[in-house]
Amino acid sequence: MRIETAQREQLQQWEKELEQQYQRICQHNLSLDITRGKPSADQLHLSDSLDGILNGDYRAPDGTDTRNYGGMEGIAAARELGADILQVPFEEVLAGGNSSLTMMYHAVLTGYLFGFAGNTPWKDLRAPKFLCPVPGYDRHFSICEQLGIAMETVPMTATGPDMDAVEEMLRADDQIIGMWCVPKFSNPTGVTYSSDTVDRLAQLGKFANPGFRIFWDNAYAIHDLDQQVKLPNIRDAALSNETADSVLQFASTSKVTHAGAGVAFVSASPDNLASIKKQMSAMTIGPDKVNQLRHARLFPELTQLKEHMHKHAEILRPKFACVLEHLDKNFTDSDLGEWESPEGGYFVSFNTRPGCASEVIRLSAEAGVKLTPAGATFPYGKDPEDTNIRIAPSFPPLEELDTAMSVFVLCVKLASVRKQLQSL
Amino acid sequence: MRIETAQREQLQQWEKELEQQYQRICQHNLSLDITRGKPSADQLHLSDSLDGILNGDYRAPDGTDTRNYGGMEGIAAARELGADILQVPFEEVLAGGNSSLTMMYHAVLTGYLFGFAGNTPWKDLRAPKFLCPVPGYDRHFSICEQLGIAMETVPMTATGPDMDAVEEMLRADDQIIGMWCVPKFSNPTGVTYSSDTVDRLAQLGKFANPGFRIFWDNAYAIHDLDQQVKLPNIRDAALSNETADSVLQFASTSKVTHAGAGVAFVSASPDNLASIKKQMSAMTIGPDKVNQLRHARLFPELTQLKEHMHKHAEILRPKFACVLEHLDKNFTDSDLGEWESPEGGYFVSFNTRPGCASEVIRLSAEAGVKLTPAGATFPYGKDPEDTNIRIAPSFPPLEELDTAMSVFVLCVKLASVRKQLQSL
Repeated sequence: MRIETAQREQLQQWEKELEQQYQRICQHNLSLDITRGKPSADQLHLSDSLDGILNGDYRAPDGTDTRNYGGMEGIAAARELGADILQVPFEEVLAGGNSSLTMMYHAVLTGYLFGFAGNTPWKDLRAPKFLCPVPGYDRHFSICEQLGIAMETVPMTATGPDMDAVEEMLRADDQIIGMWCVPKFSNPTGVTYSSDTVDRLAQLGKFANPGFRIFWDNAYAIHDLDQQVKLPNIRDAALSNETADSVLQFASTSKVTHAGAGVAFVSASPDNLASIKKQMSAMTIGPDKVNQLRHARLFPELTQLKEHMHKHAEILRPKFACVLEHLDKNFTDSDLGEWESPEGGYFVSFNTRPGCASEVIRLSAEAGVKLTPAGATFPYGKDPEDTNIRIAPSFPPLEELDTAMSVFVLCVKLASVRKQLQSL
Repeated sequence: MRIETAQREQLQQWEKELEQQYQRICQHNLSLDITRGKPSADQLHLSDSLDGILNGDYRAPDGTDTRNYGGMEGIAAARELGADILQVPFEEVLAGGNSSLTMMYHAVLTGYLFGFAGNTPWKDLRAPKFLCPVPGYDRHFSICEQLGIAMETVPMTATGPDMDAVEEMLRADDQIIGMWCVPKFSNPTGVTYSSDTVDRLAQLGKFANPGFRIFWDNAYAIHDLDQQVKLPNIRDAALSNETADSVLQFASTSKVTHAGAGVAFVSASPDNLASIKKQMSAMTIGPDKVNQLRHARLFPELTQLKEHMHKHAEILRPKFACVLEHLDKNFTDSDLGEWESPEGGYFVSFNTRPGCASEVIRLSAEAGVKLTPAGATFPYGKDPEDTNIRIAPSFPPLEELDTAMSVFVLCVKLASVRKQLQSL
């Protein structure tokens, strides 16, 4: 189906046929949900040995009684797990509670209220703002929005954020004090940052505001579908550029073990960690060390962690294949949309023709298929071109996903044809 | 031993004898710690069935898969546990992570950055300040200190904070926007607020700044040593005074199950909860529901919870008895110090003669007995009279506590005698 070159009669014919198909589907009273990157029950089940894994022995390898108070940094065994995931030294890792999002929130708070490593608190700047590669992760944007930190967008490319734009913006504006990055299997585009991108990011600290921090949300660090995709190590790159303070790294076991009951990690330079710990010291006596110990027991070495992630990949692979098959079959050699084929992560990002995304989402919802709200992948929920839709294939069973995708592609076609007819 | 009426020769004689005893003790190379209110290993052991209690069934009673993301309010079964502890309706309770301190921090943050229930954010006030009954809990004060909220002290009495002073201060200063309270077995004095105190606190909202909030940290709600001590219900009192918005309540299972791996609760009016949830929504996808379910399984009804607390009391009772025995034996009919005999909670608060507390703590430390740092029970760590020492008997085994208390009473005597000699 090519819309731009189609005659009005052809478009009208298509609209009629698609409309009929759509009406039929609406009668099925579907209730499907492909909105969020939630693991499926099958995936969660992989970690069900966590409860009971301690077998009455609550002592960490270093002798810590994990049941009691204290130990703000997390137990060493858990910090080592985080170090394995992020490929950084264990001394630069703190192991926390069940949410890396919460850690990022607190890190933004630290910068905003107190400043990192002796720099001016962001709230005292004239117009503090974050760079946001788009499309991106809505929950990152919500943190900035809540704290009143302005956001400027920069386009994502197939190798990461558009670095020419990023550098230009940072050189022109010393009020830019943060940047969100999901560097591997980016949410939602699935892109992994190239070596050149990582290196240029690591150099930003040379000319940015000294309080500038890259929020490196490595949520999908070990979430490869097939072969392992290599993300260059940002810490190494920063160290060789003498910009170690400009990076804060985050990861978690949320999409490794139980999504809501995992362990989160932050890794940073000693000066940044000192700032983070200072903020934490008023807020907590320490994280849930018992749950950290459970995770350390489940993954005593990197080997077990990798084997575990292979099992996730086996469950996820057919789901991604299903989504891509629908897209390939319907939209290859069409002008109805564009997408990338991710090699890991949790999303497929689809760009409709301009001005169609919200209508696709509305039509799908009416047919019983819930998609991430239009605009969610942009700051303030505003997709300027109204094109981006994030598809999250992980949660529903394969058959349901298959049905949902049939509805989706139909809605893309219907919305596109109607839009084109209106514009003639 | 009565110091004020003693002659110089008598004091010198005492000093000599005490000095000799002290030197002997110092040679024992003790290493004892009665600084913090940590449960002992025996107490922690009472809840060791938590790990494995789910027996592979991760579904909450309402069908929620606790393993996955979501459910910011906590699972209903956990909220019911919080409601039981605080004696409030379950709809007004949120169940969170492992720390009520963290919940309090976030609640202060909500008031400070965003304001509760539509009121002015505290940061935008001229000189926002909290009332702090003293002696009090150091971690409360640290939250205010970190956020730059000023603190004004008000003395604790045997029935709670000096309410005449509290009312006068609130009437005189509309910049008072918060007050810390540990209403039952107060940290550290052990006092439980009287009915009159609770009622007068509930009336503060009638004339205080509309953004004023009482932080009701009911940390020891069910931590009675013998008979149950009744704390009047602040929610009921507030409702009947139409000041429901003026109270935020907190509790946790930290000193019920595993201190570092429990479940925390906040309870508040619908408008306050809306403010809290709005702040949380940018910070978290939800608490660790798996651990919440473990707690709900351990305590299906209030009965099991009460039985469990009886077991704690059995372990704690001899420890409190030991502390009080040392104090009674050495200081009854003396002018060396004053203390209360708490009926629950985690502390015994001891007041030395003016200007002696820090020296007692220093002497004890040198003899190998670690006490809470001098001044810790006052804002900014400054005890104006240098009298208050918080004794935490729960953690060490009974024999160690006994030894530590022998050292403590000796140091009180030695410091007091020396101080008196200097002043002659």
